Amino acid sequence: MTSSADEPAAAPSLLAPVVAGTPVERLTDDQAFLDAMVATEAALAQACAETGIIDREAAAAVVTACRELKPSAHDLALRATAGGNPVIPLVADLRERVAADHPDAARAVHHGATSQDVVDTALMLLASRALEQTATDLREAAGQAARLADTHRATPACARTLGQQAMPTMFGLRAAGWLTGITEAIDRVESVASALPVQLGGPVGTTAAYGDRGPDVVAALAARLGLVAPVGSWHTRRTPVVDVGHAAVVSTGAAAKIAADVVVLSQSEVGEVAEASGGGSSSMAHKANPAQSVLITSAARQVPALVAVLGASMAAEQERATGAWHAEWEPLRQALRLCGAAAHRGADLLSGLRVDTVAMRRNVDHLVDTAGLDAQAVPQAQAAATPWIDRALAAYEQTRGSRT
Amino acid sequence: MTSSADEPAAAPSLLAPVVAGTPVERLTDDQAFLDAMVATEAALAQACAETGIIDREAAAAVVTACRELKPSAHDLALRATAGGNPVIPLVADLRERVAADHPDAARAVHHGATSQDVVDTALMLLASRALEQTATDLREAAGQAARLADTHRATPACARTLGQQAMPTMFGLRAAGWLTGITEAIDRVESVASALPVQLGGPVGTTAAYGDRGPDVVAALAARLGLVAPVGSWHTRRTPVVDVGHAAVVSTGAAAKIAADVVVLSQSEVGEVAEASGGGSSSMAHKANPAQSVLITSAARQVPALVAVLGASMAAEQERATGAWHAEWEPLRQALRLCGAAAHRGADLLSGLRVDTVAMRRNVDHLVDTAGLDAQAVPQAQAAATPWIDRALAAYEQTRGSRT
Amino acid sequence: MTSSADEPAAAPSLLAPVVAGTPVERLTDDQAFLDAMVATEAALAQACAETGIIDREAAAAVVTACRELKPSAHDLALRATAGGNPVIPLVADLRERVAADHPDAARAVHHGATSQDVVDTALMLLASRALEQTATDLREAAGQAARLADTHRATPACARTLGQQAMPTMFGLRAAGWLTGITEAIDRVESVASALPVQLGGPVGTTAAYGDRGPDVVAALAARLGLVAPVGSWHTRRTPVVDVGHAAVVSTGAAAKIAADVVVLSQSEVGEVAEASGGGSSSMAHKANPAQSVLITSAARQVPALVAVLGASMAAEQERATGAWHAEWEPLRQALRLCGAAAHRGADLLSGLRVDTVAMRRNVDHLVDTAGLDAQAVPQAQAAATPWIDRALAAYEQTRGSRT
Amino acid sequence: MTSSADEPAAAPSLLAPVVAGTPVERLTDDQAFLDAMVATEAALAQACAETGIIDREAAAAVVTACRELKPSAHDLALRATAGGNPVIPLVADLRERVAADHPDAARAVHHGATSQDVVDTALMLLASRALEQTATDLREAAGQAARLADTHRATPACARTLGQQAMPTMFGLRAAGWLTGITEAIDRVESVASALPVQLGGPVGTTAAYGDRGPDVVAALAARLGLVAPVGSWHTRRTPVVDVGHAAVVSTGAAAKIAADVVVLSQSEVGEVAEASGGGSSSMAHKANPAQSVLITSAARQVPALVAVLGASMAAEQERATGAWHAEWEPLRQALRLCGAAAHRGADLLSGLRVDTVAMRRNVDHLVDTAGLDAQAVPQAQAAATPWIDRALAAYEQTRGSRT
Repeated sequence: MTSSADEPAAAPSLLAPVVAGTPVERLTDDQAFLDAMVATEAALAQACAETGIIDREAAAAVVTACRELKPSAHDLALRATAGGNPVIPLVADLRERVAADHPDAARAVHHGATSQDVVDTALMLLASRALEQTATDLREAAGQAARLADTHRATPACARTLGQQAMPTMFGLRAAGWLTGITEAIDRVESVASALPVQLGGPVGTTAAYGDRGPDVVAALAARLGLVAPVGSWHTRRTPVVDVGHAAVVSTGAAAKIAADVVVLSQSEVGEVAEASGGGSSSMAHKANPAQSVLITSAARQVPALVAVLGASMAAEQERATGAWHAEWEPLRQALRLCGAAAHRGADLLSGLRVDTVAMRRNVDHLVDTAGLDAQAVPQAQAAATPWIDRALAAYEQTRGSRT
Repeated sequence: MTSSADEPAAAPSLLAPVVAGTPVERLTDDQAFLDAMVATEAALAQACAETGIIDREAAAAVVTACRELKPSAHDLALRATAGGNPVIPLVADLRERVAADHPDAARAVHHGATSQDVVDTALMLLASRALEQTATDLREAAGQAARLADTHRATPACARTLGQQAMPTMFGLRAAGWLTGITEAIDRVESVASALPVQLGGPVGTTAAYGDRGPDVVAALAARLGLVAPVGSWHTRRTPVVDVGHAAVVSTGAAAKIAADVVVLSQSEVGEVAEASGGGSSSMAHKANPAQSVLITSAARQVPALVAVLGASMAAEQERATGAWHAEWEPLRQALRLCGAAAHRGADLLSGLRVDTVAMRRNVDHLVDTAGLDAQAVPQAQAAATPWIDRALAAYEQTRGSRT
Repeated sequence: MTSSADEPAAAPSLLAPVVAGTPVERLTDDQAFLDAMVATEAALAQACAETGIIDREAAAAVVTACRELKPSAHDLALRATAGGNPVIPLVADLRERVAADHPDAARAVHHGATSQDVVDTALMLLASRALEQTATDLREAAGQAARLADTHRATPACARTLGQQAMPTMFGLRAAGWLTGITEAIDRVESVASALPVQLGGPVGTTAAYGDRGPDVVAALAARLGLVAPVGSWHTRRTPVVDVGHAAVVSTGAAAKIAADVVVLSQSEVGEVAEASGGGSSSMAHKANPAQSVLITSAARQVPALVAVLGASMAAEQERATGAWHAEWEPLRQALRLCGAAAHRGADLLSGLRVDTVAMRRNVDHLVDTAGLDAQAVPQAQAAATPWIDRALAAYEQTRGSRT
Repeated sequence: MTSSADEPAAAPSLLAPVVAGTPVERLTDDQAFLDAMVATEAALAQACAETGIIDREAAAAVVTACRELKPSAHDLALRATAGGNPVIPLVADLRERVAADHPDAARAVHHGATSQDVVDTALMLLASRALEQTATDLREAAGQAARLADTHRATPACARTLGQQAMPTMFGLRAAGWLTGITEAIDRVESVASALPVQLGGPVGTTAAYGDRGPDVVAALAARLGLVAPVGSWHTRRTPVVDVGHAAVVSTGAAAKIAADVVVLSQSEVGEVAEASGGGSSSMAHKANPAQSVLITSAARQVPALVAVLGASMAAEQERATGAWHAEWEPLRQALRLCGAAAHRGADLLSGLRVDTVAMRRNVDHLVDTAGLDAQAVPQAQAAATPWIDRALAAYEQTRGSRT
């Protein structure tokens, strides 16, 4: 179940710097998907044995073959095109390997399953790991946002609407808004991650090969893989997939809101915050670009469109769709990568954010002058903002508690 | 708060027959939005009075003005373009009307609020009504799907994968899949509908005009409007909007899955089901088109793209976005209309669906012959399908119970 | 072919202030679509008469009925839902009216056509008018951009990359970029507008009712309506629709680029430009919001998603798609409205744009200081920018010439 | 400029079987992009030398370094994240290498350019090669469609609307529709491919480093790379990118229309066509899945959404966008891959398509019976279809001629 020796995992994409080097990159690459498919085949054999569908020796032979087989992602991808999915050649290889030592056990490979069972389950395993990592990064980001909200609860700053300096606020209130967005994202991500279902319906969703024991085999497989047993096969009932998509949208969006603010606040003319290490420029040495924010923004511009592909695939006809299902794979993977990368960079961004309270004060004083505001405007804003900051911190504390 | 006498509500769209004539059409039209904005202004005055922010006489004057004002949607729309939203002219009209009789009370109009508070709250009111109607229709559809699942638990039928007859199934199992999809949609729609927040942050989200009483005023407003009090202003934290979008995607998708199956099953060459009253043709009298299914499908092709616009708007900068917010309005309305229409037509479709069990049997017999299947294949499929149908019915019963 | 007396045209949308009051609004409303369908039926009768398919008296009776019929958009929309499109009830009404006076001529109504012929042709007529109006507004905008490019060819300004002051440029070069974007949009819009095809294939695209005269009837219909005769029926070959969508994307995008710049340049802290009449605020009198730019931006965030729905509908099966076609109607209309509105507001925005060259100079001086640039940086930028400005103006002049 | 020895090119994606093994896969992978960036740097040095901006010896040193440098895509991707793009570390490596032998020539590396110049130009080189390959495949597909249209001009078949057998047509007319769709795609793809611009604006689009010689250097670079010299820098004027996107949509859509028809026609109950080698099933030996059609469909469901991301990026502020630009890279690459793969598989699909004219005849006879059609309906359809088939073939011949 590990990578084959003579082939590196897929390289990080030159065209997706937001993803390169983040933890979610390896969790969602071709090798990870391949490993997840092999793990599914092994667990299926064990689940079948556990429920008495196949015998234990055959299952052991399958598990051994899964452990020893070092399939090449490259090779499988090429062979996947004939039948339209990579499970067909993978199962052929597994059967051949099992048959070499245990001819009788070859039938135990992929027993009662269909290709979609393995692809969907493997994708849920990827989603599970990617969303867990995302939740970890979001919790780190939330901690940082809470710190900023609390530290700057009395730091006056300009609120801006439609690009215009509008009225005084506290920088801590803006950070409290970030915190609430992240808190909501954690809620969506964790609740989806805890409900990811295994897929096992057999060729047409009846689990006919298991007699009337289908639900038992499915439950056993789910338990082994740390996934949930669904109400029924979801080959063409794609709610689980769009739920993952929604979590990705909310999570990426929460990070993108912060990035959007940092882009404005770090403009040369505003100068109220700066990223820890502004990105360099290939041609202008004096610049300190908000590179992390820009990369997060680039992710957030892609995820909703990718998730729209998932939504459109809900209209999946009969027991296996003629294209809608295949269209989900890469967009789902990309959405998971981008959302995980945005969360990871969001945590980094917040932890290193340099806050210039003097510049904030200067800008807010300028606003008070220009707009002819009452001298009490700033203290009033502070008084008004305080209970809202406290509410955001309290809601966050509740989320923290829910983890344990 | 009712429609003005001399102006009909917006006509149903000639270009959206899926929506025309469904309950959600009126719940989301311009007049409904206008009424919701006026209702928000009235409730705001009452909430301010209730919390001691303004006096009760002034609030009463505002409420009276709201009741008597018959704003024209057409006129407001035209005047909305200067400032970018319809609240500015609406508030001007309200203030003028209040001032006519109670000059001192004019300041009580829109007290402490900003345009976005009123637009967002009004949109949540629309979402609340549209999603409630959608849930009602989904529950009706679920009842019909449950009936089909139970009635046809032993009705053999061809399962089809990638357009090919594949293996025997029971028609009741397919209906059970529909049921589970609808059950999931009910869950998503009702959970979102019960958490729709009021918006009230004032110009920049501080509720500065209410001193440190902001959370109290917000809570009072929420209580009056039947919405939820948020953790804080969500002017540029758009989780509530994308949550509505997700519910719309899941709900429309659940209906579209059914429609996709009906389209295949009602093909001339398949002939296993027919819509209650097949749509006519302007040129071919012999046809009985699956018109409801086609319209539902047309909705499902639009909703994910509209919701992607909402997702992209999460990257909303500072305290009021420069375009992202305005971009949400029409897509949110359209998503609500299409999702409600799909649910309504889905219930109709299922309640009138004509099932030809003889044709199903003929097709499955043909499959058994062609594929050289074992004579036991059909009984085995029935035995295997039964526990899955029972699971789907049980999950549905749980949802039914949760309503009360 | 005019609106019925007792029903106003669809009100401008309260939820789309970018559209309200712009010329394209009426060109694309329900009444305009209804008129276009009726005009198509009349022209079809004439084309059939002209080619000897039906006799001239019958055609005259149809034309008279088309002129006298005042169908209600509301009523047709409601009756459209049974068959899935509004042509079925419209044709029934027309036939009834013709039959009242000329029983023999009733068959001449809608002769040889199918519903989709009329809906698609009517949509192309709407597209034609909307795109022509868009082109007119784009040409106005181009003139304004050319003026700014020429006037400010030696107006030093800060170029900004990733939100940071980067290097000196000329404001005229930025305007030249706007000009080129608009010039490209004009090219795309006009080339698409001049190639919009009529649709006439009959029930299944064979034009069987016209014997071997199909291409002649189609040519005659196209000539009467000012559209192009296609290579063949495009009932399920939707290139014309996605071509319109692309023109809408490019045109809206060109306006949105300008709006994006104006939003940044009119920020309080930058202050280099201002809209002619900044939008007011319902709560902050001192603000001058870039309201036009914000509305244009809101359009540009919707159009690509709407056009994606059109693109997905290209996969239209057999001779009439089961949902893909119906899904196009409203997104196509919305894309046309938003693109036309963005062009119109873009022209307004540029014509009234207030340019503060002193502020530009102050900011660029600050950049030169901060970045430690050479004193020659500004003159060098001017020398370098000049030939590029000239190229943009020359390309625009070429486009102007091509109009006549 | 070739791949480094110790690192294989990116593996084909396990999650995109439509792409795996098609020619466009290698043309658009990370190594191809890396090679294109290096080729751009080399050509830039030569263009600068040719126009007298740098001396020829320095340029030669840069070209040598480009040839000898074997950058690792993996390494560059990781180093790209700090500054947000891979050009910064690539230029650093190039400068170091040049400096080792020719210290004075190091300044000649990347002279006057900015990162975006290199990324955008490299992406246009990828687009150029991918679209050329796509055009080649489309021309092959067109030849096959023309053959089918001509061969089957008198092969009666059922036309189907909304899934129902509707009226007789000729199979050749359906193929003629496919042909016209492909012909339109060829036109869009080739016209875009022939207008792809080089990007060279320097840090802020002024080409300040070249004095007033900017247009000359740009023209020289374009000539060397086989691209077009643009009117001006398009750093934030993204028409070229959305034009590529549109070509991808039309091309993928043309293939998807064919695939959609093949899916219906190869259904078990219809049986009128079959793919050359139906895809196998991991669990049902009797099935012959339309695997190519399903894969093509999966591509067509993704491309419009990816292209919508490109469209939204047109709203690019100032001289370098804060995220919109970075968001284009991966969607552009994916759109090119999917469109090229769909064209390639489309050609394969058509060339091997097995047409069962007996089944077509049986189905059309059934329709004539069921619908009570006139005995002349089939010959009439043939007579009517003939001129349309001829028109489609003629339009295709015109396209063929335009190639030479």
